[in-house]
Amino acid sequence: MPQDTEIKNTESQVDKLADASGQGASVETKFETKVDATGEVIGQKLSAYLAPTMKESPAEAEIVSHKLMIRAGLIRKLAAGIYSYLPMGLRSLRKVERIIRTEMNRFNAREVLLPSVQPAELWKESGRFDKYGPELLRFKDRHDRDCVYGPTHEEVITDLIRREVRSFRDLPLNLYQIQTKFRDEIRPRFGLMRGREFIMKDAYSFDADDQGADLSYRAMYQAYVNIFTNCGLRFAVVEADSGPIGGSFSHEFMVLADSGEDALAFCDQCSYASNLEKAKTGDYLIYDAPEAPLEKAHTPGCKHVPRLAAYMKTPESSIIKSMLFEVEGGQPVLVLIPGHREINLIKLKNALDGASPSLASPEEAERLTGVPMGFVTPVGAKVKILADLAIGRMANGVVGAGEADYHFKNAKPGRDFKVDQYWDLNVATQGDPCPHCGAQLTLKRGIEVGHVFKLGTKYSQSMGAKFMNRDGNEAPIIMGCYGIGLGRTVASSVEQSHDSDGIIWPMALAPFQVALLPLQVQNEKVFQAALSLYQELTDLGVETLLDDRDERPGLKFKDADLLGLPLRVTVSEKGLANQQIELKQRKNREVTMLPLENAAKAIKQWRDQALKAFLS
Amino acid sequence: MPQDTEIKNTESQVDKLADASGQGASVETKFETKVDATGEVIGQKLSAYLAPTMKESPAEAEIVSHKLMIRAGLIRKLAAGIYSYLPMGLRSLRKVERIIRTEMNRFNAREVLLPSVQPAELWKESGRFDKYGPELLRFKDRHDRDCVYGPTHEEVITDLIRREVRSFRDLPLNLYQIQTKFRDEIRPRFGLMRGREFIMKDAYSFDADDQGADLSYRAMYQAYVNIFTNCGLRFAVVEADSGPIGGSFSHEFMVLADSGEDALAFCDQCSYASNLEKAKTGDYLIYDAPEAPLEKAHTPGCKHVPRLAAYMKTPESSIIKSMLFEVEGGQPVLVLIPGHREINLIKLKNALDGASPSLASPEEAERLTGVPMGFVTPVGAKVKILADLAIGRMANGVVGAGEADYHFKNAKPGRDFKVDQYWDLNVATQGDPCPHCGAQLTLKRGIEVGHVFKLGTKYSQSMGAKFMNRDGNEAPIIMGCYGIGLGRTVASSVEQSHDSDGIIWPMALAPFQVALLPLQVQNEKVFQAALSLYQELTDLGVETLLDDRDERPGLKFKDADLLGLPLRVTVSEKGLANQQIELKQRKNREVTMLPLENAAKAIKQWRDQALKAFLS
Repeated sequence: MPQDTEIKNTESQVDKLADASGQGASVETKFETKVDATGEVIGQKLSAYLAPTMKESPAEAEIVSHKLMIRAGLIRKLAAGIYSYLPMGLRSLRKVERIIRTEMNRFNAREVLLPSVQPAELWKESGRFDKYGPELLRFKDRHDRDCVYGPTHEEVITDLIRREVRSFRDLPLNLYQIQTKFRDEIRPRFGLMRGREFIMKDAYSFDADDQGADLSYRAMYQAYVNIFTNCGLRFAVVEADSGPIGGSFSHEFMVLADSGEDALAFCDQCSYASNLEKAKTGDYLIYDAPEAPLEKAHTPGCKHVPRLAAYMKTPESSIIKSMLFEVEGGQPVLVLIPGHREINLIKLKNALDGASPSLASPEEAERLTGVPMGFVTPVGAKVKILADLAIGRMANGVVGAGEADYHFKNAKPGRDFKVDQYWDLNVATQGDPCPHCGAQLTLKRGIEVGHVFKLGTKYSQSMGAKFMNRDGNEAPIIMGCYGIGLGRTVASSVEQSHDSDGIIWPMALAPFQVALLPLQVQNEKVFQAALSLYQELTDLGVETLLDDRDERPGLKFKDADLLGLPLRVTVSEKGLANQQIELKQRKNREVTMLPLENAAKAIKQWRDQALKAFLS
Repeated sequence: MPQDTEIKNTESQVDKLADASGQGASVETKFETKVDATGEVIGQKLSAYLAPTMKESPAEAEIVSHKLMIRAGLIRKLAAGIYSYLPMGLRSLRKVERIIRTEMNRFNAREVLLPSVQPAELWKESGRFDKYGPELLRFKDRHDRDCVYGPTHEEVITDLIRREVRSFRDLPLNLYQIQTKFRDEIRPRFGLMRGREFIMKDAYSFDADDQGADLSYRAMYQAYVNIFTNCGLRFAVVEADSGPIGGSFSHEFMVLADSGEDALAFCDQCSYASNLEKAKTGDYLIYDAPEAPLEKAHTPGCKHVPRLAAYMKTPESSIIKSMLFEVEGGQPVLVLIPGHREINLIKLKNALDGASPSLASPEEAERLTGVPMGFVTPVGAKVKILADLAIGRMANGVVGAGEADYHFKNAKPGRDFKVDQYWDLNVATQGDPCPHCGAQLTLKRGIEVGHVFKLGTKYSQSMGAKFMNRDGNEAPIIMGCYGIGLGRTVASSVEQSHDSDGIIWPMALAPFQVALLPLQVQNEKVFQAALSLYQELTDLGVETLLDDRDERPGLKFKDADLLGLPLRVTVSEKGLANQQIELKQRKNREVTMLPLENAAKAIKQWRDQALKAFLS
């Protein structure tokens, strides 16, 4: 007892306080929370909880996860894109957190905690202080120093590493944190799905060589597969465009949900999967018509593909759209694509070495080409011409004739007009051939919850994070970065799994595992039976929410469906008369009657089975 | 297996990655972290960790905890008052976090998570947007809306509660969070002790009546006693001035350390303990000299007490210092205090109903009184006179005579000058009588790590957080707030417990419990024995850091002392020759030789004993 003197002192003060309040020495335990041996809450009486349910969702909530998380009392809005987690919402968040931490630890990542307020100097060093848009929250501290609220931590971690890592012996290293970030989205919405303040797990790997960096990447890839599997989510991993962060390659982890913001392409046969932004296709259209000479045709008013195709009695796929794009910091380009396809702007940007393209307005296009919209032609064009790969397979396309109300028929690239560069420029569509095996691609929608990037030396070069390699030479450290949105993962679970009555939690992420409903709390027998079951369940480690409120059964059932805990256990007068309780699965609404005797053990088995069903 | 289709897909991608890197399917495990069943790191090889030790501490580090935490590689500075936690520093932080969470849960507080970015409107409602100094970090978001980075959460939680709590049935309620805050200190220093960005546990209680609020306060008081006891800290609880947050009463939890910023007064006999700011004293000076008539004395150049006392051949305690204070928004007051005592400005402010006093400059005092500094007199003074309680017991004091180079002898309050108000105004000193029992007060120094406030209705009134009471009337909710600084708790442990070689961790907060040192890692027998012990210890749940670096023993010992894990286990050629390993306690440097057989179990017992020694 190192602190005996002082404790004597504090104890007598507590006694005095007890006297002052006119109470004995025992602490008030009427509103009981049951805490397990590790200090975590394993059981909770609903009457003493903060879990306010709502019949209506707020008008501003557009997507189902936002609506249901507000209605079930999991989160509350403080300001646009800024949410408070109420106790049950936090419980689900913590479950994601624990699953992530476990896998990160297993895959040899070391947990650190980096600050949210960062000096702007670091962002100036990396060049992102200017490049990052207004999403970067910039402010000055009381000494007028430029600061940012970190939306990500590449700069801070690179600064740490350049100070601490000296030699190849210090590598590899993978550091992660679970921490709050801020991105000042212009139109934050969708609740936790696109908030301004949000919690992320971000990890950064540091390697001495490319092979090591690939191993680090692979380890995180596998950790992420385990994490989302253990969360009980249906997900897919897709190839992704690495976007403004740059780097060699990247994958996105997508929770599949019809409401997802991202479109994904999957091969029905092989393992090909990609974000639509990056999805390649095989030869999606074969042109087998014979060659014929170029021929001018009168096409009055046929400015748009559908009308032109109808007028010319030809499929839209035989029309070549000629679109003029202005290019950031460069000359305009003319882009050619089959009439029935859309241009993928991300692919176009990549074809332009990263310069941003923007479609010229009809007026601007006419000013630059001298031809009205709808009749621009590649034939004899002076500007650079970029064409989708499919254009190269055409022998008799329809193109503008370079004057109002006329087109050319039978145009053939190379013969009738030049193409400076062929590139995969089209947006993949349902049924396109897979670029790997030629089978059909299927499109699905998904929510990005995780992202792995191989960064390469982007930050280590600009910020001077070097190490001494085995040969005694200085070399830049090779980095990777790996993110998971925690709140987003919780919300995407709701998005993926719900029905008209409310949330359907996977066992792994449910705030509690069992909702225990005594239907008549005024009936001593019913209430005592429920209390005993509550004690037994929580003693067995089953997370139980006891709805001890004196409310009518209909309201309790409604709230239970809304909150969506996986197992609902009902204790009623009727059931007890047969020595039974009712177990209902939220997922499939299946009802099972269990004998009262050993009910807790039986329920635990249901719980265990549900957990094991997807654990990695 | 709900996600079979997608998993097939991801697995084949992992295989592809594996093929690409030229490696088999198994994950690289050379740099092993051992993870226990709950996913936490239970064992770590130092060679693959980020734990950079330093011989010298940074020049700016003024206090020992700051120096040692940097040197031992626990934290790194990012900017003034902003620190990154490296893996081992974070481990200690997490231990404090777990201890806090356990007790908060046990005492029926519900965990929530509130945002760091808060709308300024709420702070305007409570009136603190203007009152809070430049420590409140204010900024505008991209839509030009005023925001703050929350230094505390009274406003946000009161806003939440006024929306969710309707009736006495919803009360009592206690909500807590463990979350990052920011206070823009003008001169942040002392490492984690007074950082700008810091992690706090803050809790807020909500009650329907005063008695309930006292019970809530008492529960938190007891929880805090348990928390700091379980952290293994020597601490004391003292009465505190409730300061700018206001409220009815408050206590501070102080870790005792000679370097503490706060001075504390303790009674040697009874339970009285107080922050020096608020410490009362009994009658600290008894004046028993007989009365005598007022007499003017020539005291040339005696402007200061020591010189005056020497010149008059009288003790300093018989001199009455007359000090003119200007008062914020009011008239100046003349404050009288015995010559050998200091004025306690907090007490003076309370005597002035909370108006801030500031000592008039000599020039200003002379301008206002017409008397040069050192000779100001209460005799015939027109201003309000406030006197320390001890002045009322004086019969023959020495006071200024109201003209240069003259004093009065034998001055008696009431007879020779008026006193408008007596008040306890002095700073308690070592040996003063206890205000409760009269025994001697002892002064100690401490570091504030926790603070409990009874807030009353300060925020519920200003922000309109009302509820319907049992009688059907609206009433403001009665609040309490309760804070613990997590990083500060870790730092104060180091401040309290260290020696010239480094940190001495209590078992409860140590980053790892055992430092395992194979002295000759190139010796296969030594290294294998250490590896086996590492496996056994970690299997038994003993947190072990294996120093597997190929370094000389001296450096390993130095680093182990610096890091200060409670138990150091050395495996050496010499020891193994006798089938022994060496166990050394960091605390008292006691060495015990243990037989190699069953060594892990023996070490676990030492660990268990150290943990039990202070657990509540």
